[in-house]
Amino acid sequence: MTRFGLIGMIRAHPGKGDALAEVLLDAADRMRDSVQGCESYVIARAPDDPDAIWVTEVWESREAHAASLTLDSVKAAIERGRPLIAGFSERVETIPVGGLGLG
Amino acid sequence: MTRFGLIGMIRAHPGKGDALAEVLLDAADRMRDSVQGCESYVIARAPDDPDAIWVTEVWESREAHAASLTLDSVKAAIERGRPLIAGFSERVETIPVGGLGLG
Repeated sequence: MTRFGLIGMIRAHPGKGDALAEVLLDAADRMRDSVQGCESYVIARAPDDPDAIWVTEVWESREAHAASLTLDSVKAAIERGRPLIAGFSERVETIPVGGLGLG
Repeated sequence: MTRFGLIGMIRAHPGKGDALAEVLLDAADRMRDSVQGCESYVIARAPDDPDAIWVTEVWESREAHAASLTLDSVKAAIERGRPLIAGFSERVETIPVGGLGLG
């Protein structure tokens, strides 16, 4: 099975970086408990920009990622995050092949 | 302790992407066994460019990352990788705050 990865930067509206990071950390907790196929989901802040949040994701397959987006818990997190988000300034798809810290 | 993260893309010389990915996967195995403070180290290929390798790293601290670069096993991996590398086309430092798949 070919893994599916995403590297992206989400920009919060000014002053909303902390709130958006909280929503994403909560979403990661839900994935740990109830979402199949997520091998890594790391939330990181940008050292010089409090409104920029980096998210790196590793999924077992492209299908596992797509399936997660149909779950009520994930849809609810997206709805909570949406009003905080100004835009997405980077988004790269990758094919993770291994390493340390995969589920 | 503030974590330290890196998101970067390493470009191999033409046709050397597979060889560089192997060196990086081997380096990740060594980190699992003998390098302190590495929480995640994921190697990923670019879907449309066989010579582009994405590496995402999470370390317990900036100091843990710096210390790893002084280890003989890491220095040996860098020496093996160096002749395969054409350049580094992206490099972002981050402050990982949590998520799924951290050690």
